[in-house]
Amino acid sequence: SDNFFLLAGPCAIEDETLALKIAERIVRITDDLKIPYVFKGSYRKANRSRLDSFTGIGDEKALKILRKVNETFGVPTVTDFHSAPEAAMAAEYVDMLQIPAFLCRQTDILVAAANTGKVVNIKKGQFLSAGAMKFAVDKVRESGNSNIVITERGTTLGYQDLVVDYRGIPEMKESNNCPVVMDITHSLQQPNQLSGVTGGKPELIETIARAAIAVGADGLFIETHPDPANAKSDGANMLHLDKLETMLKRLTILRQAVNQL
Amino acid sequence: SDNFFLLAGPCAIEDETLALKIAERIVRITDDLKIPYVFKGSYRKANRSRLDSFTGIGDEKALKILRKVNETFGVPTVTDFHSAPEAAMAAEYVDMLQIPAFLCRQTDILVAAANTGKVVNIKKGQFLSAGAMKFAVDKVRESGNSNIVITERGTTLGYQDLVVDYRGIPEMKESNNCPVVMDITHSLQQPNQLSGVTGGKPELIETIARAAIAVGADGLFIETHPDPANAKSDGANMLHLDKLETMLKRLTILRQAVNQL
Amino acid sequence: SDNFFLLAGPCAIEDETLALKIAERIVRITDDLKIPYVFKGSYRKANRSRLDSFTGIGDEKALKILRKVNETFGVPTVTDFHSAPEAAMAAEYVDMLQIPAFLCRQTDILVAAANTGKVVNIKKGQFLSAGAMKFAVDKVRESGNSNIVITERGTTLGYQDLVVDYRGIPEMKESNNCPVVMDITHSLQQPNQLSGVTGGKPELIETIARAAIAVGADGLFIETHPDPANAKSDGANMLHLDKLETMLKRLTILRQAVNQL
Amino acid sequence: SDNFFLLAGPCAIEDETLALKIAERIVRITDDLKIPYVFKGSYRKANRSRLDSFTGIGDEKALKILRKVNETFGVPTVTDFHSAPEAAMAAEYVDMLQIPAFLCRQTDILVAAANTGKVVNIKKGQFLSAGAMKFAVDKVRESGNSNIVITERGTTLGYQDLVVDYRGIPEMKESNNCPVVMDITHSLQQPNQLSGVTGGKPELIETIARAAIAVGADGLFIETHPDPANAKSDGANMLHLDKLETMLKRLTILRQAVNQL
Repeated sequence: SDNFFLLAGPCAIEDETLALKIAERIVRITDDLKIPYVFKGSYRKANRSRLDSFTGIGDEKALKILRKVNETFGVPTVTDFHSAPEAAMAAEYVDMLQIPAFLCRQTDILVAAANTGKVVNIKKGQFLSAGAMKFAVDKVRESGNSNIVITERGTTLGYQDLVVDYRGIPEMKESNNCPVVMDITHSLQQPNQLSGVTGGKPELIETIARAAIAVGADGLFIETHPDPANAKSDGANMLHLDKLETMLKRLTILRQAVNQL
Repeated sequence: SDNFFLLAGPCAIEDETLALKIAERIVRITDDLKIPYVFKGSYRKANRSRLDSFTGIGDEKALKILRKVNETFGVPTVTDFHSAPEAAMAAEYVDMLQIPAFLCRQTDILVAAANTGKVVNIKKGQFLSAGAMKFAVDKVRESGNSNIVITERGTTLGYQDLVVDYRGIPEMKESNNCPVVMDITHSLQQPNQLSGVTGGKPELIETIARAAIAVGADGLFIETHPDPANAKSDGANMLHLDKLETMLKRLTILRQAVNQL
Repeated sequence: SDNFFLLAGPCAIEDETLALKIAERIVRITDDLKIPYVFKGSYRKANRSRLDSFTGIGDEKALKILRKVNETFGVPTVTDFHSAPEAAMAAEYVDMLQIPAFLCRQTDILVAAANTGKVVNIKKGQFLSAGAMKFAVDKVRESGNSNIVITERGTTLGYQDLVVDYRGIPEMKESNNCPVVMDITHSLQQPNQLSGVTGGKPELIETIARAAIAVGADGLFIETHPDPANAKSDGANMLHLDKLETMLKRLTILRQAVNQL
Repeated sequence: SDNFFLLAGPCAIEDETLALKIAERIVRITDDLKIPYVFKGSYRKANRSRLDSFTGIGDEKALKILRKVNETFGVPTVTDFHSAPEAAMAAEYVDMLQIPAFLCRQTDILVAAANTGKVVNIKKGQFLSAGAMKFAVDKVRESGNSNIVITERGTTLGYQDLVVDYRGIPEMKESNNCPVVMDITHSLQQPNQLSGVTGGKPELIETIARAAIAVGADGLFIETHPDPANAKSDGANMLHLDKLETMLKRLTILRQAVNQL
């Protein structure tokens, strides 16, 4: 396909029925639009602000749901993980392992992901420059794994805001010779809220996505849920599942124009 | 036209022959692409880092060249100005007055521009939020002039870098009900260089422009010169005039796609 | 005196009685503490967010009050100004001319201040590095005036916050061979508030001041008022006049320790 | 003691002789100045930019050296660690466990440190506000451990610079009711260098320290080495061991003044 690819799903795996329902819907939409699709769901959330935030339904239970999504719809799956020993465990269930942004400098985690042989999706730290991502990429590549994706998710702008620096997308593509994904959901976070719950600006989801496609992003990362207000994590920026198809259609039109340039 | 409009020309008016040569070339290109065009040239540069930087050829001489461009090609012209009394003077020669970014909070300058009745193009300060631009806009509007354009030119990111926050483009359009222009040239500045000469990243010109068109910018601002290395000011980010046509063609394709969304 | 010096007074000159009352109080306090004192008051505010903000009681009227303070108490006075022609006018009444932070790159304003022969206090732009201040200083010095003071007033940190970078204080002292003042009041601003009224964090006034004295600041700039809540401008961060003496005593103790280092 | 306390030592444990030599020297200095002292050394470095950077001499070997320092000089010791299972291991050898700044949001790591019963020193992430540190502190406290120290180590300012926001020191002390340490060494880092080796500004070490003492920091964290140019990690900002005594004497004078305020 000459369309962008898509990593999408709920923030966290909440239950099997919901995961399958979301996957089914996105599979149908992405098939229509010829968007290569990877189902995204975290089996555990490890860096919530507060100890009483939702962290998951149990690692194995959630990972089995990810495998079930793959078996049911034939789509690859991705999850993040948070410590070196978890890489091998998660790799038994999914096709792509994602390095959280805060952890993108942790050598043991990058090497553990590399060693699974799975695709490694490294999220760029909010404190990292596009140029410095090559050191994270090199840790994976020098460990013998060249199936690497980079994900942009915004840069620290004062304490309570993030900004996407679109200069980094072509720069990271060229310097690292690997696909670059725009994480629309987390780029819109408003961190360091005194409530302990990260805020967001969901009305800007399409703005962030359009600019990414225009500058050559290869893929998009979108968290989506049929009921964002009641999602167990990160509801602030999740796209309502009902709005996904319309937005992807519009972005596909934009991508077709970009392909002509 | 349903294409974006263009403010373009040399940074400073250096001499009549050069101004006319640049104007002629851009007029031809923009006619072909149905891009409404405004010739840009500063009659004086007032905020150079160093006292020995080039500041101009004389105000009246430069302003007459701007008028000559208008008379010769029938295109409107724009210049910036730097103090309240200059507004009326400049307004005798040009069609649009531009408020420099550092001065966008200076009430007397905004009001002086408003009072000329010309179109007022307010550049957003590097220190200003998109939301706060409404106070600058209101100063012009409450002075009785509603012909207002806002120009985005990047936000302070540490001392030596600027980042374009594309969230501001739709936000400023909606909040202020006026066109928003992306200043590609100055958004790529690398300020606070110890040489006293602001640096740049010209290889990213098209990246900045594409993202702007994708998120709905109404116009683009581009400084261009047939010999950027020898331009008397701001050479670091000026687009070579020979590259303008190709880039505008590509951006026109992108704009046509955006118009369908 | 080996104590720090002080620029202090109300934000704007509101009326003669109030100005004299504030001056009298501060003169007494600073005499006791051997703090060289300069009375500060703006004769006009030119960069308020909103057109309906208070801007002044009339230039000449306010400037005469500044002269009266000088004549009455024998202390020098300082005001900011906002355009080149105003420099000579203000210089007839005051001893020090202050360049507003947003205007610190405007060559004509710096040169006009220099040409008055008065002390020129250049506030560092929120967007400027300590290293780049030498270009502003050089514009004054190369115009033949070496009576220069630099004032630090915080650096842009995201849209709605400022941070004081204390590294700049020794750097600016050494690079420019002139005194450096810490503006405690404006360093605590919270700009870009959607109300159009800049916010503040007055509980941190002494924190900002202590760190400045510790790293070698030569002077402090403090806006103070007997009734900050009813001050006509910048009330958010003004120190209550009743709290000034205690704080200056504490800072004097700190300064005595610093003098021993 | 009413002096500040000190966490100091080499960045990484390189060998026993060197560790003991550094400890002996600092013990003597801090005894003279009545500075409570904790020997600092990392048994492993886990987040170097490059895979070929020095990471350590072996965990157990390095941890035994830390214990040897404690046994030899009777001073407590501190090391950082990088994954939950390492907390219990390191706790067998040291008195204080330090959470690296990039990891200060990782719940499992905070809880693992808390569960050892050792003092937990949480470094504030470069992307975190002072206010948001309460969520990290609460994770430790709610796990039953109230022996908590917070360390400030600078905030992201653009990609290649950090700034210390001194407002956070009193704020974090008050909000969390625990001591706050200023990490002078890492606050001066210049991250994201394209060489893959983080740079520094060591001439500003005392500036950073003085401001911290002035605003009420309870402790200082300083990496020091008898030969910084040949240190195996973080040489760019390490203080030469020969300069430590003079600086601590000066800071003790400053602290005595602060104690009077």
